[in-house]
Amino acid sequence: MSRGLYVLNGPNLNRLGLREPDIYGHTTLAQIEAMCREAVGDAPLEFRQTNAEYQLIDWIHEACDRADALVINPAGLSFRSIPVLDALKMFSGPLIELHISNIHARDEIYRTSLVSPIATAVICGLGARGYDHAVRAALDLVTDRAA
Amino acid sequence: MSRGLYVLNGPNLNRLGLREPDIYGHTTLAQIEAMCREAVGDAPLEFRQTNAEYQLIDWIHEACDRADALVINPAGLSFRSIPVLDALKMFSGPLIELHISNIHARDEIYRTSLVSPIATAVICGLGARGYDHAVRAALDLVTDRAA
Amino acid sequence: MSRGLYVLNGPNLNRLGLREPDIYGHTTLAQIEAMCREAVGDAPLEFRQTNAEYQLIDWIHEACDRADALVINPAGLSFRSIPVLDALKMFSGPLIELHISNIHARDEIYRTSLVSPIATAVICGLGARGYDHAVRAALDLVTDRAA
Amino acid sequence: MSRGLYVLNGPNLNRLGLREPDIYGHTTLAQIEAMCREAVGDAPLEFRQTNAEYQLIDWIHEACDRADALVINPAGLSFRSIPVLDALKMFSGPLIELHISNIHARDEIYRTSLVSPIATAVICGLGARGYDHAVRAALDLVTDRAA
Amino acid sequence: MSRGLYVLNGPNLNRLGLREPDIYGHTTLAQIEAMCREAVGDAPLEFRQTNAEYQLIDWIHEACDRADALVINPAGLSFRSIPVLDALKMFSGPLIELHISNIHARDEIYRTSLVSPIATAVICGLGARGYDHAVRAALDLVTDRAA
Amino acid sequence: MSRGLYVLNGPNLNRLGLREPDIYGHTTLAQIEAMCREAVGDAPLEFRQTNAEYQLIDWIHEACDRADALVINPAGLSFRSIPVLDALKMFSGPLIELHISNIHARDEIYRTSLVSPIATAVICGLGARGYDHAVRAALDLVTDRAA
Amino acid sequence: MSRGLYVLNGPNLNRLGLREPDIYGHTTLAQIEAMCREAVGDAPLEFRQTNAEYQLIDWIHEACDRADALVINPAGLSFRSIPVLDALKMFSGPLIELHISNIHARDEIYRTSLVSPIATAVICGLGARGYDHAVRAALDLVTDRAA
Amino acid sequence: MSRGLYVLNGPNLNRLGLREPDIYGHTTLAQIEAMCREAVGDAPLEFRQTNAEYQLIDWIHEACDRADALVINPAGLSFRSIPVLDALKMFSGPLIELHISNIHARDEIYRTSLVSPIATAVICGLGARGYDHAVRAALDLVTDRAA
Amino acid sequence: MSRGLYVLNGPNLNRLGLREPDIYGHTTLAQIEAMCREAVGDAPLEFRQTNAEYQLIDWIHEACDRADALVINPAGLSFRSIPVLDALKMFSGPLIELHISNIHARDEIYRTSLVSPIATAVICGLGARGYDHAVRAALDLVTDRAA
Amino acid sequence: MSRGLYVLNGPNLNRLGLREPDIYGHTTLAQIEAMCREAVGDAPLEFRQTNAEYQLIDWIHEACDRADALVINPAGLSFRSIPVLDALKMFSGPLIELHISNIHARDEIYRTSLVSPIATAVICGLGARGYDHAVRAALDLVTDRAA
Amino acid sequence: MSRGLYVLNGPNLNRLGLREPDIYGHTTLAQIEAMCREAVGDAPLEFRQTNAEYQLIDWIHEACDRADALVINPAGLSFRSIPVLDALKMFSGPLIELHISNIHARDEIYRTSLVSPIATAVICGLGARGYDHAVRAALDLVTDRAA
Amino acid sequence: MSRGLYVLNGPNLNRLGLREPDIYGHTTLAQIEAMCREAVGDAPLEFRQTNAEYQLIDWIHEACDRADALVINPAGLSFRSIPVLDALKMFSGPLIELHISNIHARDEIYRTSLVSPIATAVICGLGARGYDHAVRAALDLVTDRAA
Repeated sequence: MSRGLYVLNGPNLNRLGLREPDIYGHTTLAQIEAMCREAVGDAPLEFRQTNAEYQLIDWIHEACDRADALVINPAGLSFRSIPVLDALKMFSGPLIELHISNIHARDEIYRTSLVSPIATAVICGLGARGYDHAVRAALDLVTDRAA
Repeated sequence: MSRGLYVLNGPNLNRLGLREPDIYGHTTLAQIEAMCREAVGDAPLEFRQTNAEYQLIDWIHEACDRADALVINPAGLSFRSIPVLDALKMFSGPLIELHISNIHARDEIYRTSLVSPIATAVICGLGARGYDHAVRAALDLVTDRAA
Repeated sequence: MSRGLYVLNGPNLNRLGLREPDIYGHTTLAQIEAMCREAVGDAPLEFRQTNAEYQLIDWIHEACDRADALVINPAGLSFRSIPVLDALKMFSGPLIELHISNIHARDEIYRTSLVSPIATAVICGLGARGYDHAVRAALDLVTDRAA
Repeated sequence: MSRGLYVLNGPNLNRLGLREPDIYGHTTLAQIEAMCREAVGDAPLEFRQTNAEYQLIDWIHEACDRADALVINPAGLSFRSIPVLDALKMFSGPLIELHISNIHARDEIYRTSLVSPIATAVICGLGARGYDHAVRAALDLVTDRAA
Repeated sequence: MSRGLYVLNGPNLNRLGLREPDIYGHTTLAQIEAMCREAVGDAPLEFRQTNAEYQLIDWIHEACDRADALVINPAGLSFRSIPVLDALKMFSGPLIELHISNIHARDEIYRTSLVSPIATAVICGLGARGYDHAVRAALDLVTDRAA
Repeated sequence: MSRGLYVLNGPNLNRLGLREPDIYGHTTLAQIEAMCREAVGDAPLEFRQTNAEYQLIDWIHEACDRADALVINPAGLSFRSIPVLDALKMFSGPLIELHISNIHARDEIYRTSLVSPIATAVICGLGARGYDHAVRAALDLVTDRAA
Repeated sequence: MSRGLYVLNGPNLNRLGLREPDIYGHTTLAQIEAMCREAVGDAPLEFRQTNAEYQLIDWIHEACDRADALVINPAGLSFRSIPVLDALKMFSGPLIELHISNIHARDEIYRTSLVSPIATAVICGLGARGYDHAVRAALDLVTDRAA
Repeated sequence: MSRGLYVLNGPNLNRLGLREPDIYGHTTLAQIEAMCREAVGDAPLEFRQTNAEYQLIDWIHEACDRADALVINPAGLSFRSIPVLDALKMFSGPLIELHISNIHARDEIYRTSLVSPIATAVICGLGARGYDHAVRAALDLVTDRAA
Repeated sequence: MSRGLYVLNGPNLNRLGLREPDIYGHTTLAQIEAMCREAVGDAPLEFRQTNAEYQLIDWIHEACDRADALVINPAGLSFRSIPVLDALKMFSGPLIELHISNIHARDEIYRTSLVSPIATAVICGLGARGYDHAVRAALDLVTDRAA
Repeated sequence: MSRGLYVLNGPNLNRLGLREPDIYGHTTLAQIEAMCREAVGDAPLEFRQTNAEYQLIDWIHEACDRADALVINPAGLSFRSIPVLDALKMFSGPLIELHISNIHARDEIYRTSLVSPIATAVICGLGARGYDHAVRAALDLVTDRAA
Repeated sequence: MSRGLYVLNGPNLNRLGLREPDIYGHTTLAQIEAMCREAVGDAPLEFRQTNAEYQLIDWIHEACDRADALVINPAGLSFRSIPVLDALKMFSGPLIELHISNIHARDEIYRTSLVSPIATAVICGLGARGYDHAVRAALDLVTDRAA
Repeated sequence: MSRGLYVLNGPNLNRLGLREPDIYGHTTLAQIEAMCREAVGDAPLEFRQTNAEYQLIDWIHEACDRADALVINPAGLSFRSIPVLDALKMFSGPLIELHISNIHARDEIYRTSLVSPIATAVICGLGARGYDHAVRAALDLVTDRAA
């Protein structure tokens, strides 16, 4: 992986560990970042979170220029944000959509992500550990393409 | 009320008194703030407005940490913003949703607020005076819970 | 207010305090009437309840002839009764629709009131205390129009 | 016509001439009854109005036993009342559904009458004069069947 | 009536009396025209039928220039033809839509006429005799407006 | 069974045996009452019919206070009446919904009863004999709960 | 009953008593079979269960040739299996559809059985005892037809 | 044109020329701005782009105060952003909505712009050259109104 | 442009200037043709109007054989005519769909043109002047392709 | 076959062989007519095509009077034309609907033919050779009925 | 045809000739097989029927390996079975879907086959004779491809 | 893990590597089984595939009795099979749903799995490697619960 991996997190994930623990568990985002760093080893990793749609879009643009693979947890922006969808469509590398909870088991409005149809893969319901799987899968996909 | 009340206002409400007066009346947001301050008396009050979804989310997070009750007029973010909904779900105190106009009498896209199902109460159609009712009701609800 | 205020209550509200207390609380309708009488002070007040749609229609007709403002909790008739809707359309003064529970948080069939689009204002979720707000708001609206 | 004609009117029609004159005109129900009596000549005529669904059902039952033809303006009960529909299904003679206004030009909820599919004929939009047409058509239909 | 009445008939009505007699009866269009001529007395009457949408449109344009009132049985063009609807919208006099059968009792695709919301009145289910009612009602409406 | 059983019947069932015999059979309601009385033996039984929604509501309220079990054939009120649904929700004993015909085999509007989701059990299509099954099942359910 | 009764059970019912006891109770299918045998007395009874759609179809074909009446609990095949529906349409005797739980109170996908519109009768929500009612009702219906 | 023209561009358009060239072509936003400046000649022109909804709202507010006409390409905010719609409703001059691609030929979610119903005119599918047409049309519309 | 431009107009546009001027303005089709001729300069131009779907189809066939570009205002045939759509699909050059009014601001049935998804570009709401833009854009597109 | 066979073709089929060859192939309508003539042998055959709905209706009327069987490829009129449907309902002999392409594999708007529910049989996707099958099947069906 | 033709039949077709003769006729599957054998002449033919979805899937897999063309009457599995659809997608030769009755004329649930969009051609409504057409068409399609 | 892991595969997966390689890749199911065995190490593993719904149900029942965790790729049974859903509901351990392709990027009918709402987690789009992630995640979840 010559350029690195971006892991981007959407709105409210800065409150992880505080917010609705029945659904999202008690792990904090800092702990998740540490888990991701361990998973990628030496590979360059950008791990960020924002509550602002425009910030997420800017970071996706940045990833288009600088990243080999992108793992995104768009959180509440998954379901209605066409600007985020439009930005992600520009990303040409492996794109993994991640949700901590199993969104299909939640209320109707959380069940259909706009991002899923353009993602390479989707992982949900594995809790914080899903990041570990997503990051490893992204690295593998980059290796596959390079092969 | 030991911690105080937050009154948060969403997009375009800074133009109140200028914008579509047939629907929203001629009162400005500054006048509404004054009305709210009078209604709460000594209780601490944060009264804010923003056009940015992320700003509203940040303030809701802040309210989770610092407020006893929350009155929100999410304006145009009421109907589609799942990030705002997700933030509000974290607020454990009384939550009153307020609309100046009667949203049920408006166009289809304004009739179903995502916020309503998770609010404690909803008030709409009372014009600027609705804030007075919302603030007083919020104080009462805090008192009830304390009882 | 020269003519007085009508507060009309629809089906099953005579069982208030007995029925599904998790949703409707323990206050009885008699206690609510007392609260309303206190709120209106000297103003003439008609406070009634019926389980019969036709009775409610007759009282709305009566209110058209005799009342300055109307507060109505149509209960189960809110969602399907076009005859009640037609009667209410004839009322030209302020019309406040009230629900004790937050109907938007209930089952689908309770979420869309036919009355809301023609009401002046809608208040729901404040419990029995909602009547106090509705009555005071109605008096204010009458005063506004007289001004 | 050996048994006579029933003309039944549903909720709120007692307010005709007072209610929403832009839609329903200024003619009163008493004037309409006079017009119907003139149209039927010697034939026995029952002309009634009620705001109560059960009363309308009882009268339809009565008509099943005593009338050759039935003209009905179910008003607000046209659109949702299955009990009225069930009662009308028992009537075996000509059944004419009448609406004073053109219901197809009104709001969505007024556009689909449950009664229409089981009526012999439907007349709407001719104002009070529609009763004259409906009554004359009913007499003709009875004559046709007798032929 | 200074300018006269147009009665226009749409596709397949030239086969009346031959086509699906269970639904449309045995009267021919020529017999209906005779009935209409008797009903209008001295008033000028244009009675026409066509299977072509464009022909119907041209005749409606002609009626806009020359007729006081318009009775139309658009037949199969009632349900989908926006060009016919657009032409009818230009007609400023009384417009009566007529159907021989009760369209509300037929298959789903025959139940919602595009024309009904812009018609003055709608009559259906009275068989061939419906033309007599429609023509008389049209004359009355012209007289009313002249009054 | 210490308190007894209520069997309540909704609109138009007083015409049973006369009305649409292809669907409902020739048995009268009096014969059905006799069958129920035989089925319950010594247990107190209230067997009633009404065409009025409000009357049905009042009787359900009464059953809440006095009955161990409730068998209801809401007839045409099954499909749209939220006031009846609200009243039934207050009944805490076994509630059996009964329909003489198989409502699922009828027209669309008769296929979805609002009552079914809150009933203990639903029986339809067994004709008049369905009452016998419903009454016996209700007694068994009361016995089960007492056990 | 000259030919006998078939009681057929669909997928997962072999796990009865183990599976989701809150919904289905603790009675096993063997106990239910015993209850049915007692209810039918001397009449020949085939009582079977299968998890395979094709097996159920074959048994229904067999019932067409050999049974006077059929009681079926299609379980999860009720809602989507058109082959089972097609097979049942060939059965000309009384057909009773049975569900242990009240399917109308369950999730949306369990509420509309394809079988119900072609069944003679439907019983649901009576638990294991529903089989007793269904079997007895089936015998009565056979007797009725023989009469 | 005394006050000038605003041309506002929404999310991701800063990537124009890089992003999905099959759909959006190779022209950059800077080239488009140059084209617009040429088209308006001496008239004051504000040409801006942002990825942030709140920024777009603020600029629309500014345009309400300072612009004679507004050309907007809301990009991904066209389809779901009610706050942008609310802001645009306050603009009283000519409002032209522009899309580079033909949105009606794209995926379902891109076909219905919330903005279109309140725009004066809509142009789509003309590629970058669409801006030239939009700007010229806006100037003409301002001139028309001034006439 | 070696072969020329076709501008085809659908039903009721011959009445332009007479018909619903609030929506369509006062310019006549002859004036629009003159405007188009000025816009194209020396290029060969066919400008035609018809109320007949088949005529429009024949002209589109002709355009397939003889035109470089096609501007079409299908008027009322835009929304339901699959034969016109099928004919347009055969045209391989630039195809511009034009509407005088902003169809997205009109009634539901006028909002979704079948033609738009297969057009190169769509222009609506610019009034008669829209033809000028459409013709100029068509010429440019032909030039682009030739380049 | 005493009266002969009609093969009628709808809009745009005169362009067959030119139009969208990926979907419709390269055979011309003249070649198809020759194939049909060979298939029918001595039997009288009318083979026609029109782009006009009214012409198709007139020919269907003619077929009602003169044909034993009718093969129709309504092309674009299959999906929306109720006048054509109404005309076809009058045809009492075997009616075979034919489509050259497999309409179920095309866009949504081409998938549901109004004609199919009233046809005797439907054949699609066999290309030009489908006419041969349709014609032979029609002859067989006429022979069957004569038997 | 080097490899042969498979004709596969789905659930309940073993009862052909016994089942709902009004819809399916009196021909048995054995007679149909004989008809198919005559139609194919020397070509190898596998003609099979099963009530089991898995068996049908296995045979389709077998056909993928051994057949040049496939004729399938999936019967009740046409409308809901995605496993059968998935298996058929693997078949690369001509695939003809056949239904004995005209499925478009039946109940809603029988009108949309999942298989049709991936079939080469669809034939329905020709009764047992449809097999003859399907088999001959399949042979022709194989010959075409070989050409 | 005391009891072991089941990996169950649904219809058509026996053809993996042969079937639609653009969607499913070239890896065979045997290779996937090997990958899973490597991933689980010493833990007992049952890895099976079937085309029969009933077989899958029986194996799920077996897993209820013998497995600690279950990984399932229901393939075409994911979207419509309620019997499989019912069986899976009985499994109380971690349940991971796996799809080789990204089902959200496929046709509509493949986008909504009935199983997802009751699964612990869902993984799709990672190709054959998804099994490795699913198996490892299942083991981790069992360990978590044991903790």
